[in-house]
Amino acid sequence: MPKVLIKGKNIYYEIYGEGEPLVLLNGIMMSTGSWTSFIDVLSSNNKLVLVDFIDQGQSDKAEEQYTQDSHVETLRELFNILELEKVHLIGISYGGEVAQRYALKYEEGLHSLVLANTTSYTNHMLKDIGESWIAAAKTYDGSTFFKATMPYIYSPEFYEENIDWLKNREKAFSASLKPDWYEGFIRLVRSAEDLNITEEIHNIKVPTLIMSSEYDATTPLRYQEEIQKRIRNSKLILIQGCGHASMYEKPYEFVSAILGFVKSYNKEIKVV
Amino acid sequence: MPKVLIKGKNIYYEIYGEGEPLVLLNGIMMSTGSWTSFIDVLSSNNKLVLVDFIDQGQSDKAEEQYTQDSHVETLRELFNILELEKVHLIGISYGGEVAQRYALKYEEGLHSLVLANTTSYTNHMLKDIGESWIAAAKTYDGSTFFKATMPYIYSPEFYEENIDWLKNREKAFSASLKPDWYEGFIRLVRSAEDLNITEEIHNIKVPTLIMSSEYDATTPLRYQEEIQKRIRNSKLILIQGCGHASMYEKPYEFVSAILGFVKSYNKEIKVV
Amino acid sequence: MPKVLIKGKNIYYEIYGEGEPLVLLNGIMMSTGSWTSFIDVLSSNNKLVLVDFIDQGQSDKAEEQYTQDSHVETLRELFNILELEKVHLIGISYGGEVAQRYALKYEEGLHSLVLANTTSYTNHMLKDIGESWIAAAKTYDGSTFFKATMPYIYSPEFYEENIDWLKNREKAFSASLKPDWYEGFIRLVRSAEDLNITEEIHNIKVPTLIMSSEYDATTPLRYQEEIQKRIRNSKLILIQGCGHASMYEKPYEFVSAILGFVKSYNKEIKVV
Amino acid sequence: MPKVLIKGKNIYYEIYGEGEPLVLLNGIMMSTGSWTSFIDVLSSNNKLVLVDFIDQGQSDKAEEQYTQDSHVETLRELFNILELEKVHLIGISYGGEVAQRYALKYEEGLHSLVLANTTSYTNHMLKDIGESWIAAAKTYDGSTFFKATMPYIYSPEFYEENIDWLKNREKAFSASLKPDWYEGFIRLVRSAEDLNITEEIHNIKVPTLIMSSEYDATTPLRYQEEIQKRIRNSKLILIQGCGHASMYEKPYEFVSAILGFVKSYNKEIKVV
Repeated sequence: MPKVLIKGKNIYYEIYGEGEPLVLLNGIMMSTGSWTSFIDVLSSNNKLVLVDFIDQGQSDKAEEQYTQDSHVETLRELFNILELEKVHLIGISYGGEVAQRYALKYEEGLHSLVLANTTSYTNHMLKDIGESWIAAAKTYDGSTFFKATMPYIYSPEFYEENIDWLKNREKAFSASLKPDWYEGFIRLVRSAEDLNITEEIHNIKVPTLIMSSEYDATTPLRYQEEIQKRIRNSKLILIQGCGHASMYEKPYEFVSAILGFVKSYNKEIKVV
Repeated sequence: MPKVLIKGKNIYYEIYGEGEPLVLLNGIMMSTGSWTSFIDVLSSNNKLVLVDFIDQGQSDKAEEQYTQDSHVETLRELFNILELEKVHLIGISYGGEVAQRYALKYEEGLHSLVLANTTSYTNHMLKDIGESWIAAAKTYDGSTFFKATMPYIYSPEFYEENIDWLKNREKAFSASLKPDWYEGFIRLVRSAEDLNITEEIHNIKVPTLIMSSEYDATTPLRYQEEIQKRIRNSKLILIQGCGHASMYEKPYEFVSAILGFVKSYNKEIKVV
Repeated sequence: MPKVLIKGKNIYYEIYGEGEPLVLLNGIMMSTGSWTSFIDVLSSNNKLVLVDFIDQGQSDKAEEQYTQDSHVETLRELFNILELEKVHLIGISYGGEVAQRYALKYEEGLHSLVLANTTSYTNHMLKDIGESWIAAAKTYDGSTFFKATMPYIYSPEFYEENIDWLKNREKAFSASLKPDWYEGFIRLVRSAEDLNITEEIHNIKVPTLIMSSEYDATTPLRYQEEIQKRIRNSKLILIQGCGHASMYEKPYEFVSAILGFVKSYNKEIKVV
Repeated sequence: MPKVLIKGKNIYYEIYGEGEPLVLLNGIMMSTGSWTSFIDVLSSNNKLVLVDFIDQGQSDKAEEQYTQDSHVETLRELFNILELEKVHLIGISYGGEVAQRYALKYEEGLHSLVLANTTSYTNHMLKDIGESWIAAAKTYDGSTFFKATMPYIYSPEFYEENIDWLKNREKAFSASLKPDWYEGFIRLVRSAEDLNITEEIHNIKVPTLIMSSEYDATTPLRYQEEIQKRIRNSKLILIQGCGHASMYEKPYEFVSAILGFVKSYNKEIKVV
């Protein structure tokens, strides 16, 4: 299993295919394993790079609280080690927060930026949601944790139509997650608590795609419209009938938007 | 304090003003005390009736689990005692669920029905939300309970703009709520778990106003559009920029919609 | 027939009922006759005042081009003659433009302002629509005129469901309208061409209700949200599933919103 | 200039690049010339085929009225001549109507179908819009024609921000269009009048992308949702802040959606 030692911690990554690199940054409860179904389609014309943040998946657990900026530095070193001079950086939710921070610091290393279902500010509601997730995590009970988190992740329609899949995941979660996973999750939540870069992101100049979902109540459209206003070279697409976890609810729309953007972000189309 | 003894339990109510009766049925965490600011405007042309369901406010606590149908019977007896032959029945969220059940059973006692931010079916997401609320209630900790519930109640904008008010309410909640309140709350949640009257509500013939909110992710617009399709003599209004607790977030719009409906529900306007 | 002579022209009006006066200002193709079905419900608690602008209905035709401000002065004199010290001024589309101008000049004579499906600015699209309407009017052919105007007035759904009613109206239009009607219509269009009071309406302090329609492509929601931002003491309601002519497509919702607002506009409801 | 003689008429086409063929079918007022800015980006991985329908651009004018089915047959023969065994067929508005008809008849010749801002049914409103366009075309006056048609094509925002571009186009239109162009346009409108394949399109099985625009009042989202419901293997994307002519208002979003779809339409992504 490919891991690199960065700042004393093993960071797990996977690489597939060849071409301009696409780097996927996971949402908070995800890991490289969440992307299994997407590997083929996303690596057919690009070098696809998956990576677990510290406290995620097969990367090491942390011993103390860290900041999202430490992820930025870890990514920077990882890209150096992997000799990825320029990448398309694609961040989902929590991963999109880290992606924005990366763009603010190391924009010269980016072809483009894709921000899916994310925010530039942990508002008071998100803070309280985070606290309720932490309270649920501290029970170390998979079922309690699942019920405290899933309604924020999926749309009611998806929830209803895929209840068996969700209940199976709940069982798998409950069975597999160990206390140190919950403790890592709590650190990840805490690292996002002070996020407030709304007044900085106008400095991002790299071509940016913002993906929002019609039924995402956790990071709703109007907050992503705020991001779009500030990042001048940005496009926003809205996925209809979809909740916060767009890659699960609408995988084709999610993939298609990324592939289309990566194909056209640097082309000139002058109509008006 | 006006209370009546119904089925061995004291049920608390308040009455203001004169005219065709408006009866307000509380949301699950509300009580008659939640309506203080609305009494003047809602009682200026109508007899306004506030009532605490069993396990709410100043009504008695239950000793065992009950159904929403038992609320229907309690209301029926209350209206008999108060000699309210016909009322406008206005239900908010949980209260709207009870109001639909009432209309299905005792429609002849209604002038009209107002259903605000409610549903005819406890879907799988709502069930899990309910379970997460129960888990939080079982901590008997006001702060934990508040953080597990409030993000489902208010829109992100309202949350952000009224964070001081919310934090004061959290403190007041934490200080005042006793274990028996949380136990009552759990019974109220459980009484809604099996709600599924979607295929029955086409039998409701009384003029009905359905109120939905743009940012209500708990009982979203599209579910209330389903209600509207089924209740033929119904109108739907949408309150813009508003979350689940429309009466708190947009009190004027909430009140105006009710007053306008109560003034016009039985008038004929034949344009087409 | 009640008419008053104002600035040498007969202005036609109708009055019904008693109470705080509600004055309805017509849309551009409307007249007092358009409100027949609404008289009962709108005059049950209020003095309802209908009025034809010059070049509308039973008022005189103009001999030369006028401005919307001349309507404001006509209304002012009419209210003086009728001894209407304070009114609720309700303007639909073109009438809403005049209503805003009235509020900017004579706000002390208003209890409240209702602006339905209107704008504070004739943008370039509206200018071109106006020109296309004028071109159609100049054919003096009812069928040509109808087809050039109706798609801007109704939603596709309403159009589809009420095609017989629309085609009957087209025939009635074609049969009844005389050249001087079309010439009056052209003057009405021209009087709105230079409307641009967006930067003035923040001076309107009177309680204001803004009514918008989901499918109004002629004066869409986002333009009325601009009005709402500027008039501080304003509420906005959106009528779902409805085009520009909300009073025809959703008469109950239209009436209910007005009656509810007029009942509650000056009440205090202090929640937060 | 590449033309082929089909059924006695010269049909004009252009071909660029190599790869799986993308065939673009124009909207009613468009021609191959409308796509100049898009050639580079759309031909970088695909063989891009542009074509003028009869009565469009550099194809011959018709001598009598035809049906949309005759376009289908023309396309069929063109693809045979060009030895395009399988294509991605992309239709815009009127072109999307023809594309659906093509898919119903010759689906085996399609990799995929893209339907942008189109409909499966000329409803009564569209019929009247068509009649108003014909009335304007019969004036043979570019300015009159432009004002009767453009408000249906662009969003108010685009109209406002690009008024100089629009006015220049109006002038260019007025100067260049000859009577036979207007006569051809009228035939094109008439060929769409009886379109009603809503109850047939469930037979389309080829992977389909439906593109809709937030502010498209001519072929609005809800009609394209109807198409999506019927074509089972279809995805719908919505372009925010965009009117009917999505390729002009949001060229990057338009191109990106097509390129992403063409890259991923036949990939398997199995999440749930």
